[in-house]
Amino acid sequence: MTSLQPPIPPIRPDAARGRFLRNAWYVAAWADDLGEEPLAKTFLDDPVALFRDEAGIAHAIAGRCPHRFAPLGHGTMVGSHLQCPYHGLRFDGTGACVFNPHEKGIVPQVSVPVYPLVERYRLLWIWMGEPARADDTLIPDFAWLAEPRWDAVRGTAYAEGHYELYSDNILDLAHANFVHPALAANSWTIGKRQFRQDGDRVYALYTHADDFLSEGISAILSTQGRKQDLWVEIRWDAPATHFLDFRAGEPGTPVDQLVALPSLHAFTPETADATHYFWATARDFAVGDEGFSTIMRDALANAFEHEDMPIIRDVHRLMAGHDFWDLRPIVLTGDSGGVRARRVLKRLIDEEQAGDRMAAE
Amino acid sequence: MTSLQPPIPPIRPDAARGRFLRNAWYVAAWADDLGEEPLAKTFLDDPVALFRDEAGIAHAIAGRCPHRFAPLGHGTMVGSHLQCPYHGLRFDGTGACVFNPHEKGIVPQVSVPVYPLVERYRLLWIWMGEPARADDTLIPDFAWLAEPRWDAVRGTAYAEGHYELYSDNILDLAHANFVHPALAANSWTIGKRQFRQDGDRVYALYTHADDFLSEGISAILSTQGRKQDLWVEIRWDAPATHFLDFRAGEPGTPVDQLVALPSLHAFTPETADATHYFWATARDFAVGDEGFSTIMRDALANAFEHEDMPIIRDVHRLMAGHDFWDLRPIVLTGDSGGVRARRVLKRLIDEEQAGDRMAAE
Amino acid sequence: MTSLQPPIPPIRPDAARGRFLRNAWYVAAWADDLGEEPLAKTFLDDPVALFRDEAGIAHAIAGRCPHRFAPLGHGTMVGSHLQCPYHGLRFDGTGACVFNPHEKGIVPQVSVPVYPLVERYRLLWIWMGEPARADDTLIPDFAWLAEPRWDAVRGTAYAEGHYELYSDNILDLAHANFVHPALAANSWTIGKRQFRQDGDRVYALYTHADDFLSEGISAILSTQGRKQDLWVEIRWDAPATHFLDFRAGEPGTPVDQLVALPSLHAFTPETADATHYFWATARDFAVGDEGFSTIMRDALANAFEHEDMPIIRDVHRLMAGHDFWDLRPIVLTGDSGGVRARRVLKRLIDEEQAGDRMAAE
Repeated sequence: MTSLQPPIPPIRPDAARGRFLRNAWYVAAWADDLGEEPLAKTFLDDPVALFRDEAGIAHAIAGRCPHRFAPLGHGTMVGSHLQCPYHGLRFDGTGACVFNPHEKGIVPQVSVPVYPLVERYRLLWIWMGEPARADDTLIPDFAWLAEPRWDAVRGTAYAEGHYELYSDNILDLAHANFVHPALAANSWTIGKRQFRQDGDRVYALYTHADDFLSEGISAILSTQGRKQDLWVEIRWDAPATHFLDFRAGEPGTPVDQLVALPSLHAFTPETADATHYFWATARDFAVGDEGFSTIMRDALANAFEHEDMPIIRDVHRLMAGHDFWDLRPIVLTGDSGGVRARRVLKRLIDEEQAGDRMAAE
Repeated sequence: MTSLQPPIPPIRPDAARGRFLRNAWYVAAWADDLGEEPLAKTFLDDPVALFRDEAGIAHAIAGRCPHRFAPLGHGTMVGSHLQCPYHGLRFDGTGACVFNPHEKGIVPQVSVPVYPLVERYRLLWIWMGEPARADDTLIPDFAWLAEPRWDAVRGTAYAEGHYELYSDNILDLAHANFVHPALAANSWTIGKRQFRQDGDRVYALYTHADDFLSEGISAILSTQGRKQDLWVEIRWDAPATHFLDFRAGEPGTPVDQLVALPSLHAFTPETADATHYFWATARDFAVGDEGFSTIMRDALANAFEHEDMPIIRDVHRLMAGHDFWDLRPIVLTGDSGGVRARRVLKRLIDEEQAGDRMAAE
Repeated sequence: MTSLQPPIPPIRPDAARGRFLRNAWYVAAWADDLGEEPLAKTFLDDPVALFRDEAGIAHAIAGRCPHRFAPLGHGTMVGSHLQCPYHGLRFDGTGACVFNPHEKGIVPQVSVPVYPLVERYRLLWIWMGEPARADDTLIPDFAWLAEPRWDAVRGTAYAEGHYELYSDNILDLAHANFVHPALAANSWTIGKRQFRQDGDRVYALYTHADDFLSEGISAILSTQGRKQDLWVEIRWDAPATHFLDFRAGEPGTPVDQLVALPSLHAFTPETADATHYFWATARDFAVGDEGFSTIMRDALANAFEHEDMPIIRDVHRLMAGHDFWDLRPIVLTGDSGGVRARRVLKRLIDEEQAGDRMAAE
């Protein structure tokens, strides 16, 4: 068990289970974080075991052994099979029990649920719904994460609070001026904001010409004291995957020639009260410069983990389990992205649950 | 955020909200503890933000931003306005939103509830009910806390347990002989106890002539080895504010000529399970002697925080959420004060809630 | 208060109380751990105070004072009487209040429930049901624990998880090969297992001839590199008391001439989610060798507390409050002991509760 193994969450009775979109792709882990040791995680209230077979293929199966309910993700690999840490039953990547080490050795005819898992863009994407509906073309495009041109710093955090609050935070960058001193800039408050929707995809666009960038971004781009044009688009894909396409450059530069700092912010609910936070930001300059990467990683980790997460945690606590809309929030111009995303997600969950009910009838 | 900022309490669903008297004055903080930084507190299950405007006037408004539910008390002051720590909306002392830093800057027509707040006797008193009914003549008299003649040591503690258990503790000083070795004296157990009620006010009187004071009090009054007369009256005001009027002196001295050590013990519920504990004890000798004050403060803080609080916490846990009377407590002679206070408070809450229901019909 | 005093458990409302067999003997403590100071414990959701009178007789009475609900087990002894830590009422071993230190000193005519307590085999056995039904001949035989021939190492641990999961663990030694590297041996997986029931008593027998013992046991018995015969019987008595009769020796040795390492594993529920774990293992060689004892104690404490307890805690969490059978566990050959024990216990509790209902009608 490595330090990547979070503790098994405390007991949560059925009545406290969250309301989630199950037929969707969620980030399960950074691909590099799943090595030869399996991992135990909880996604959407369900325990999951992640492991790689001998060919290096990553698999996700239900994380609770059907024998005595031990956490399979705390087990060990025997070749391509995951061995339960308690009594040694072994499971393959289809979830089937394939070995029983005990007297007579009869292998129980049992399978645990398998969750489709796709390794793409240096991430492991998990489908928590019906396997037959898992279509990997629905995985949002983060090709830059895997391209050698881009040098990305990245992180994983365990965040208290509902995952939609984390989406709201990314879709409204105006919070930067109040939460992130090093990232404050006129662009977020008095700059232009536009919101649009393309099918179930939501976009928020911030544009602001000929003004100073934030201190932190100026340091990364070496533009201190020089006014720049800024163009930032956030793309939201349900349930909670964000591409933050940040670009800046000399006034008058066409958007496609600006310097880019693309980011991923992906939120996967552990429960309705806690969220796995995966983030990355890349640059296409100073590639391979480890010192530069360290400074950038530390600054971003500080912003996300020590500035965003505490306030979102407190928001979650102050909501005291209430539904977001029941609390009748004031809606400001900057909220349009988050509001659209919430509406899309609600509709998708409603449709999914209606479909489940029809199928059950 | 200073160390005076407690964490936002964990989620408490509506069903777990306590039963409180709302139209009443509670101590919100020591006045000195509210400086240029706002404070976030929870009183009676409700989040509250405390802050001072540029004129130094203290205000209390609801502590949850109506935009995205961030803790206003973790915000910052901009002149006389409290700026939300998340997206920068600003609020004045009437609870009105007065500034929107975002695109176009239209100020939402929104107010958060305001709680009447009075600075008196070096304390901030908050009214958690209907503002129109807040009558500051109802604040119990603690004039001595503000008079230069009296040198007071004081403290604030965060105490696990229901606030009425803390009132019981002050109204029955007999516990001293078992809980506070340094404060044990015959006066508390075999001395005379009298209880009376004046309207909704409850009094407990302990008198005991010509006997040794406790070790701790003897040290403070320099009466070691000398028998003294003792006269101690506790005045309870609903919901949980206590004036402990302690007096002692040479045998035969008239009560009004005894040496006094007046105390405040004020309890403000955070929730039904946790209590803000405000205390002070003053003397009119060795005034300004900092060394004397330090010894006195440390001794009293030890008694209240390390002797009283753990046992009251355990009582609270052993009650396991049950109503006090449902557990059918044995009533001893010393309980008459606490029992009367409980009855008065129950009646006041019943009346208040009946009034609310009538107003709603 | 010594380090043997666990904290009073957090509030558990009536609805969350567990389902327990009350008319049965549970281990309350190691006799040596109850000295001149009383102890506060919680068994079967009920607070209990343990104390010894001046004759050294151990008593168990309800742990919540009927006056103001303070934890009696945190009190002090005054002669043979337990004095409440809050207001000084005193109780004797029959649960009767026998002294009131307050004004006039009238002793309230009140008794707290008394729990029959028997000191036997160096253990204190408590009966949490009807005192009239407490028959000490029902205490399972652990005579070896008290015989000078046997030198026992022992321990007490506070274990998260339902107590039946701890019984399952002892009744299926096959887990050793996966959970305890130092105790792994062929005997537990491919050796012969037999299960039988004698009345309400359940037995599991492991036999395996002419093979290597585990590394840890080989070190204790100095049999490294030599094959041995092994005979191990676990005797379960309801609710959760286990005698693990471990024997090994040169191939062909009759069972009654093998070297024995008898063990006790007794589990007493604090609540449905936490368990008091009492264990001991004895040897009849190297008796009095303190160095040998220390090595043995450390190795066993490590196995039980750092290898068993974490995985059982996780199993408990993954069960999320569900009934064991509702989760439809796969049953393997090694589970027969645990399954029988669960069935017996369920029947005994059903019968007890049916009897209670009949008595109430």
